[in-house]
Amino acid sequence: MPEELICQTNGQGLVDITASVAAIVSRSGIRDGLCTVFVTHTSASLLINENADPSARHDIESWLNRLVPENDALYTHTLEGPDDMPAHIKATLTASSLGIPVMHGRLGLGTWQGIYLWEHRHAAQRRRLLIHVGS
Amino acid sequence: MPEELICQTNGQGLVDITASVAAIVSRSGIRDGLCTVFVTHTSASLLINENADPSARHDIESWLNRLVPENDALYTHTLEGPDDMPAHIKATLTASSLGIPVMHGRLGLGTWQGIYLWEHRHAAQRRRLLIHVGS
Amino acid sequence: MPEELICQTNGQGLVDITASVAAIVSRSGIRDGLCTVFVTHTSASLLINENADPSARHDIESWLNRLVPENDALYTHTLEGPDDMPAHIKATLTASSLGIPVMHGRLGLGTWQGIYLWEHRHAAQRRRLLIHVGS
Repeated sequence: MPEELICQTNGQGLVDITASVAAIVSRSGIRDGLCTVFVTHTSASLLINENADPSARHDIESWLNRLVPENDALYTHTLEGPDDMPAHIKATLTASSLGIPVMHGRLGLGTWQGIYLWEHRHAAQRRRLLIHVGS
Repeated sequence: MPEELICQTNGQGLVDITASVAAIVSRSGIRDGLCTVFVTHTSASLLINENADPSARHDIESWLNRLVPENDALYTHTLEGPDDMPAHIKATLTASSLGIPVMHGRLGLGTWQGIYLWEHRHAAQRRRLLIHVGS
Repeated sequence: MPEELICQTNGQGLVDITASVAAIVSRSGIRDGLCTVFVTHTSASLLINENADPSARHDIESWLNRLVPENDALYTHTLEGPDDMPAHIKATLTASSLGIPVMHGRLGLGTWQGIYLWEHRHAAQRRRLLIHVGS
């Protein structure tokens, strides 16, 4: 059965969930297969990106914040706060699900790849992810 | 075997396919597993987003239309009409496939998540999706 | 076990990997299932798009190059060269993994769909992909 992964966020930003996902893969006992990560929210999303230099992740966030600013006159959906509509658009442009092959019982990530939950809201949130590991 | 889902679109916009995908999951008899939705076209794409307030979806569409306008002087691929090249770019920025865990025989979507086929062309189209449900 | 696919790139651009992925699906012996393509790098990504007219792919590349230019004053991660930060952002906006249903032993792609590895760096690179085929 898919496992639930709860991730407490602390405002806008990237939360490294690589170790948590890897632990679920390990617990599954599956040696060779596929791990799917899914986020059950529409104002947070998933990212696989550079895990070494934090400046790369910082620039990705700054760049997307500039592309999708708050208080854009185009927005009509404003009731849930100035960060809500940008959050939905950022989630649209990034991923809701990721499929990562499992080899020899481990995630087949490249050396410089980390898996991140991307919180797009300013307030801290309790985010629920589902992780499926199959053969 | 993956099931075919035919979706008749009616010009640019989001078509809610959540119930159709859920019905295929139900028919599959699979209790715990993974459902993959795939669109077999390059001028339509997939989106998981807010299913409650239509204004959120409206703003996502307006925003992407502004980011990827028609009649951009950059386009050289113009033979298939002014909406064709924007359609390919919008499909590039969004998803061709989605992986959604299945739990207790149901799609593991969050409360506010819907699955949408995003038609990027102006003309009505008959879109063909493939839905795979595995354990 | 997921199969490794090595792809030698030759600078920025799209490399058609459809035939290589199809060959792995064929070798797997799986008739009906799911093929997942995963790229193990953060400065290259995956794209399913129009395989017929090369001008469509050309415009997609030009458009994304304009959206994510080099030497943007916003970048702080500049040590790895002017094309590195744009590469990470382009990978963020496109796909790291793709799930494609397999039917009758073949990839369930639409007539006009090709699978591309998108090299975002200028230098030639040896890119490693993982392909999982399951039922």
